[in-house]
Amino acid sequence: MSELISAVRVTPVAFRDLPLLNSVGVHEPFALRTIVEIVTGSGLYGLGETYGDEPHLRRIERAGTALIGTDIFDLHEIRRRVAVSLDHDDQAGGHGMAGMVTTSSTTDRVLSPFEVAALDLQGKIVGRPVSDLLGGAVRDRVSFTGYLFYKWAAHPGHDEDGWGAALDPGGIVRQATKMIHEYGFSSLKLKGGVFPPDQEVAAIQALRQAFPHTPLRLDPNAVWTVPTSIKVGLQLDGVLEYLEDPAAGIPEMAAVAREVPMPLATDMCVVAFDHLKPAVRQQAVGVVLADHHFWGGLRRSQSLAAICDTFGLGLSMHSNSHLGISLAAMVHLAAATPNLDYTCDTHWPWKDPEDDVIVPGAIGFENGAVKVPVKPGLGVELDRDALARLHQQYLDSGIRNRDDTGYMRRVNPDWKAPRW
Amino acid sequence: MSELISAVRVTPVAFRDLPLLNSVGVHEPFALRTIVEIVTGSGLYGLGETYGDEPHLRRIERAGTALIGTDIFDLHEIRRRVAVSLDHDDQAGGHGMAGMVTTSSTTDRVLSPFEVAALDLQGKIVGRPVSDLLGGAVRDRVSFTGYLFYKWAAHPGHDEDGWGAALDPGGIVRQATKMIHEYGFSSLKLKGGVFPPDQEVAAIQALRQAFPHTPLRLDPNAVWTVPTSIKVGLQLDGVLEYLEDPAAGIPEMAAVAREVPMPLATDMCVVAFDHLKPAVRQQAVGVVLADHHFWGGLRRSQSLAAICDTFGLGLSMHSNSHLGISLAAMVHLAAATPNLDYTCDTHWPWKDPEDDVIVPGAIGFENGAVKVPVKPGLGVELDRDALARLHQQYLDSGIRNRDDTGYMRRVNPDWKAPRW
Repeated sequence: MSELISAVRVTPVAFRDLPLLNSVGVHEPFALRTIVEIVTGSGLYGLGETYGDEPHLRRIERAGTALIGTDIFDLHEIRRRVAVSLDHDDQAGGHGMAGMVTTSSTTDRVLSPFEVAALDLQGKIVGRPVSDLLGGAVRDRVSFTGYLFYKWAAHPGHDEDGWGAALDPGGIVRQATKMIHEYGFSSLKLKGGVFPPDQEVAAIQALRQAFPHTPLRLDPNAVWTVPTSIKVGLQLDGVLEYLEDPAAGIPEMAAVAREVPMPLATDMCVVAFDHLKPAVRQQAVGVVLADHHFWGGLRRSQSLAAICDTFGLGLSMHSNSHLGISLAAMVHLAAATPNLDYTCDTHWPWKDPEDDVIVPGAIGFENGAVKVPVKPGLGVELDRDALARLHQQYLDSGIRNRDDTGYMRRVNPDWKAPRW
Repeated sequence: MSELISAVRVTPVAFRDLPLLNSVGVHEPFALRTIVEIVTGSGLYGLGETYGDEPHLRRIERAGTALIGTDIFDLHEIRRRVAVSLDHDDQAGGHGMAGMVTTSSTTDRVLSPFEVAALDLQGKIVGRPVSDLLGGAVRDRVSFTGYLFYKWAAHPGHDEDGWGAALDPGGIVRQATKMIHEYGFSSLKLKGGVFPPDQEVAAIQALRQAFPHTPLRLDPNAVWTVPTSIKVGLQLDGVLEYLEDPAAGIPEMAAVAREVPMPLATDMCVVAFDHLKPAVRQQAVGVVLADHHFWGGLRRSQSLAAICDTFGLGLSMHSNSHLGISLAAMVHLAAATPNLDYTCDTHWPWKDPEDDVIVPGAIGFENGAVKVPVKPGLGVELDRDALARLHQQYLDSGIRNRDDTGYMRRVNPDWKAPRW
């Protein structure tokens, strides 16, 4: 049975986003993604989803062309061709993560949507969900974390959105209450690095008061110095299940890890296979947040999981703003990963339910978890009208590269990235 | 498509072996293996091959019973059930490797033939070779090493076998010449640990003279002290591509590694995932010899390969005396492992070509390499007459546990395991 790629379709899309604050600025009114379809001679198609920044989009298009004629079971050949297609790429910028995850492997980032799409197609051919191609689901539901953000009440010039403002501990607790009420999450993460550490510590303490038994995480996106990180770590002893990326860099994380009581997690200093050896050697982190979008797809994320298991590192999952194809891929991966030690991150609650590219109803949240799709492949199908609509939204938005900092400065011209 | 295991057949077999010498004694006239078949409701079957020692055989039978009803795509559930079936096992002994590899994981050793059989079946269902289920073959031929042994001319009381004696450098060079002539190998490994180190160094130097450009390896099975290991390593500077297990234990290997110029390889001090962290931390080894028979099958061996790639360890492949099912599995794994840095070991030339359980012609050597089967699954089929014959041979042999030491002592009652 030969299944060769006969066509690759690459469609940039935009979906509405809310003014979520982070260490590099604020989310723009639209988030960008790229939808990848690979088609074989049999007419079946497989789906992948990745970042939407323009340099990345160009790389995806170039890699897609290079994959024509490849067997969808030959993941090694797919990776080889992706790497060759990038040979003359400057490999700088356009990572789609607004400067927060900058040292991931360009090859693995470009490979990811094609690998996911190939596995989707394999599953459809074999008549099996993707989780079965990854060794089988060890859980039938994947639990996620309520991902809290400081946020404005509305995008400038717009009416207040349904979530309202969250700019102090009280606002964060209100946001958490609403999110738990609507999604049923049983753990919470606060994106920090927005206000001085004392205010964020106060927000975490307010969450602890309001939700005495809910695991809590704080992620200041590495804008703290080592001494500040240690101070906060000691202040939040017994309160956090992990502290995520307090400081930037493997040696700096190692210096913090030696002094604080909780595990340090990362999706910033260990974001590629090259980083694992120094991180292990320096005992810099206790938990790695996997993300198949930059770890080279689902199989390579499973290799990462095996490495974490072998070297005594905990495993959790990172998320960027994403649509339903990515959610399905994350859920299959999480389901087929025995040593997933923590609930996964997702930006899902921040997305307008109307904005997606998949046929509704295939995947969703219940009690803070997503049921693992059991249909062949990823278990989600493309809604071509919705895809066209979100592509038009992309064209109309005028946004071609995520720029949280630029958007923030249009509102506050003097804004500078914080460092505490 | 549901493919549940409806039956598991476990058949111990024996095949003729030659009097090959090693650090624990000498190979008996018959080597033992266990052939595993798993059958699904559809009537398809998948094949696995593993060790034949009695305690291991009992574990395999017990695990096989526990797997009835399991989905052959659910490799995680297969591993879980194998582990549970071993819960009340004493997990001591019966490893089938005559005391040479003693600290591998019992769960992974028992899992291996079932995982391989499940992948064989998956491949048959999907219509794909096993290498495709492992990410695709990156090579269509897998190269092996000519595996040289000191040996007696014949088993006591028998006529001289076709290989004759090899008890000195001249005998080893003659053996290498014959083996290269018949199989076309382009690298050579000498199983050492039999004679005092100076004699084995002389054998390696004789091989270097006879085959100036052929990569050479020496494996004394960890019977040397650290000082002896360092002395030999310095003597063979520039001659060996790697020195395999000169000394026993991770700290001891690390002490040797610091002083010798060539990489140290191992299939003795790193034989389970638990060993990787201390080995990496102590920089004990430069090359790991993977073996799917004790690393838990093909997928887990791929995890090992990813770990080696990530932590800068070279990768090669270990072998015990084996039949064609194991050869096929080894070849698919090697084909689908991009970072296989060295030619693989095999005992294949020491096996009587008449003694196998597979239909002849599916797999074999040409120019020191084996073509990767392209038929669905492993690409080898069971010859039931041959299986019955080798099972009868097992019954008749009277051998139930490999005992190289006991056999040696029946010939030389005062023989003691060497230590230099």
